[in-house]
Amino acid sequence: MEVLCRAAATCVLTLCLGCLHVIAFKSQLFTRLGGSPPSTEPPISYETFYFDQKIDHFGFLEDGTFKQRYLVADKHWHKPGGPILFYTGNEGDITWFCNNTGFMWEIAEELGAMLVFAEHRYYGESLPFGPDSYSDSKHLNYLTSEQALADFAVLIQDMKSTLPGAQHSPVIAIGGSYGGMLSAWFRMKYPNIVVGALAASAPIWQFPGMVPCGDFYKIVTQDFAKSGYNCDTNIRKSWKAIENVSSTASGLQWLSDEFSLCSPLKNMNEVTGFKNWLQETWVNLAMVDYPYEANFLQPLPPWPIQAVCKHLALDSTVSDHQLLHGVAQAAKVYYNYTGSSSCLNTSQTATGSLGLLGWYYQACTEMVMPMCTDGVQDMFEPEEWNFQAFSDGCNFMFGVRPRADWAGTVYGGKDIASHSNIIFSNGGLDPWSAGGVTYNISSSLVSIVIPDGAHHLDLRYSNAHDPASVRAARELEVKYFRDWIKQAARAVSA
Amino acid sequence: MEVLCRAAATCVLTLCLGCLHVIAFKSQLFTRLGGSPPSTEPPISYETFYFDQKIDHFGFLEDGTFKQRYLVADKHWHKPGGPILFYTGNEGDITWFCNNTGFMWEIAEELGAMLVFAEHRYYGESLPFGPDSYSDSKHLNYLTSEQALADFAVLIQDMKSTLPGAQHSPVIAIGGSYGGMLSAWFRMKYPNIVVGALAASAPIWQFPGMVPCGDFYKIVTQDFAKSGYNCDTNIRKSWKAIENVSSTASGLQWLSDEFSLCSPLKNMNEVTGFKNWLQETWVNLAMVDYPYEANFLQPLPPWPIQAVCKHLALDSTVSDHQLLHGVAQAAKVYYNYTGSSSCLNTSQTATGSLGLLGWYYQACTEMVMPMCTDGVQDMFEPEEWNFQAFSDGCNFMFGVRPRADWAGTVYGGKDIASHSNIIFSNGGLDPWSAGGVTYNISSSLVSIVIPDGAHHLDLRYSNAHDPASVRAARELEVKYFRDWIKQAARAVSA
Repeated sequence: MEVLCRAAATCVLTLCLGCLHVIAFKSQLFTRLGGSPPSTEPPISYETFYFDQKIDHFGFLEDGTFKQRYLVADKHWHKPGGPILFYTGNEGDITWFCNNTGFMWEIAEELGAMLVFAEHRYYGESLPFGPDSYSDSKHLNYLTSEQALADFAVLIQDMKSTLPGAQHSPVIAIGGSYGGMLSAWFRMKYPNIVVGALAASAPIWQFPGMVPCGDFYKIVTQDFAKSGYNCDTNIRKSWKAIENVSSTASGLQWLSDEFSLCSPLKNMNEVTGFKNWLQETWVNLAMVDYPYEANFLQPLPPWPIQAVCKHLALDSTVSDHQLLHGVAQAAKVYYNYTGSSSCLNTSQTATGSLGLLGWYYQACTEMVMPMCTDGVQDMFEPEEWNFQAFSDGCNFMFGVRPRADWAGTVYGGKDIASHSNIIFSNGGLDPWSAGGVTYNISSSLVSIVIPDGAHHLDLRYSNAHDPASVRAARELEVKYFRDWIKQAARAVSA
Repeated sequence: MEVLCRAAATCVLTLCLGCLHVIAFKSQLFTRLGGSPPSTEPPISYETFYFDQKIDHFGFLEDGTFKQRYLVADKHWHKPGGPILFYTGNEGDITWFCNNTGFMWEIAEELGAMLVFAEHRYYGESLPFGPDSYSDSKHLNYLTSEQALADFAVLIQDMKSTLPGAQHSPVIAIGGSYGGMLSAWFRMKYPNIVVGALAASAPIWQFPGMVPCGDFYKIVTQDFAKSGYNCDTNIRKSWKAIENVSSTASGLQWLSDEFSLCSPLKNMNEVTGFKNWLQETWVNLAMVDYPYEANFLQPLPPWPIQAVCKHLALDSTVSDHQLLHGVAQAAKVYYNYTGSSSCLNTSQTATGSLGLLGWYYQACTEMVMPMCTDGVQDMFEPEEWNFQAFSDGCNFMFGVRPRADWAGTVYGGKDIASHSNIIFSNGGLDPWSAGGVTYNISSSLVSIVIPDGAHHLDLRYSNAHDPASVRAARELEVKYFRDWIKQAARAVSA
């Protein structure tokens, strides 16, 4: 039985395949937080409110409340009855999601819509127990997706009953990544509250038994394979090269220098962490492989994987040192595009200082997302999915054990055909599309695939370099929104 | 501000309008437990199992399990793939529901169905903390409908994955009264688990703001009004007559003798409890006004309200004493039909010894069901619905406060049109039909009204005296079951 991480003690902050999906997902989710809208985008303006939310919706012993933050922009709202676009906040500061979901800002006027961005409990300022919220598993006990959905439902019901003109406003849930999963689940569980949902890059099937555990890394690999000569092949070769070079003290030093590591590698344990950090770097690049310069997880050039692969277009005859020189240059595309980094920090792969603990806890409870690699169909070192090891790691970290089947039971798994009015959008470049809904399930559970899109490109501000596919996706999404709004109006007048 | 009960200290065991709906509902639900199938019914046979169920599905701190009891009868099951009829247990011993839901036993063979009766947590043998389950609000914290639904979902998922032949078996939820509410909600929240639901006499709209609070008692009154000359009028007059007669010590004694009370009335406080007991008696009669001799809450004659009203067919000129003599004789139809009662016990209105505490707790948390009387459109003393007083009473009893709007938010209230495959059956004589769905919402959210039916008559064993309406209802229900089973088969083969 393996432990959660190869380097268990440093699992939370460094990388290991056993928990990589956690970190990868988290990084992605938080990375949007790292970016600010390009200067070409119009300034946005919203008001900040706080709602007294029950700490526990599913029990009555804990009757306390906390302040849930939410942001409202009603400049374009047609009242009474104009629609409300409701962002179902993911695990991060809601102001960052608000700033980084340009799509909502761009369509508010044409839809006469109010925008609401609701913060997910335990993130940003919405801490159920203030600074103690993360102190132990007792305080973390109310950090679940069900509680978050109930927060959204109660908040919307309150807004509709207290806000003049909102009583009959149809509400559309919108979210990306984990926030997209929440949007989809929100429509499934609370169709009385939201008339429809846009679930952008939402891997609602990345749960045990639903999709092959290796698909995620296969897509990462494909992105590299098609972005430059020998690119995936050389990354696949690099792991062994790292092992080889690291076998001597001078090799370790050389490797540390080549990568400009802030903390030089001291031993093989640290080399394991180093490899995991590199692996996550490639994953992150696959998620943010956008066609224009963007600052998501990191400031990056347009089509950053192509830029990375330029350094890896090496023949099979190169030496380990030559290969790793290329890998180091490639990594620096990701970590030092702006040239402002004096050294590379292997304890981070994206915007730092945003506590990942909340998402770790969620991954260790409900959000059990199997990942695996075989080194053949993907460019990574082989590692099987090991639920028991994962569970032991969670128990070690939080004193809780994940429930592998719960998400599938409570959210329907692949049996969701009886639901309605959900758009599942996915980017063809996005590894998270492996766990997404990429085909139409019914006439009102529809899939939109954006072949040239990375992670929820459709939610971002429009850009002159947007591929046609994402432009079409956004148009179609708005068309569905209009349909749902019309449906709702008919229901109100009936 | 009023307290929960007029006689607060005895609220739990005696009666008051403020909590009457709790008791009435509970009595009804438990009363089925009091009956055993008539001897004309075939003997039933089932196996008893226990499933290790999580105590808390919505949090991970409490990772303990308890033994959930469930009963299985697979004699007629066509495997593989034959349907499963799943009774969503209400607040009582599941063996009683099993014994008293003849409809399921009667249709198992024609459908080739397995029958499963799942016990609701905190009732019968399914006690999360054994004898401590009711010890305080901390132990009661996991007694919610959401937890119960999750129990059902997890149990079914387990059965489907472990029971040979069950993998593709369509499951149909069936329940009556609160069990019917659970069936409907189960289909709404877990359409991945159950293909449809029969919600018999399920007052899913008996929540704040959904139906007028007085409708329940209006229906009770109508049942009496049409069952005998002056019947409702004389009950309406009786409350004042009781007050008048009780104003002297000799009057109290006379009243106690006339009603053969086990404990003679001593003061006006006790008279209040006495009136509440009488009120609940009339309510219970309305619920069990069946066309044949039955033993539900009590052993009763056919059309018991008619039998009761024979004693109340008095002219307006009768004296208080004459009127109350009639009322006493009427009450004895309910409490002493068999002639075996030596005295009447005002602390009970139905089968005793079945702890009501669980349902009180549920009513004091999620199941907030407003009731009121005006003495004009109903035959009871006027009493408004007073949520604050109710809440204070709950806080006094359990240290919890009810959440008036939660059930509506989480279960959709009147906005349930997007769901599918639910039959709502209601009896025209049943006061709980006031909070039921008595019209078609869509082609697959259908209402079946049984004009001559009392509380979920359709779930009972068939009887030679069944009105045509209940026979037709059962036929239609089976037709829908067949449709859902076919739909499911198409989905599996698709």
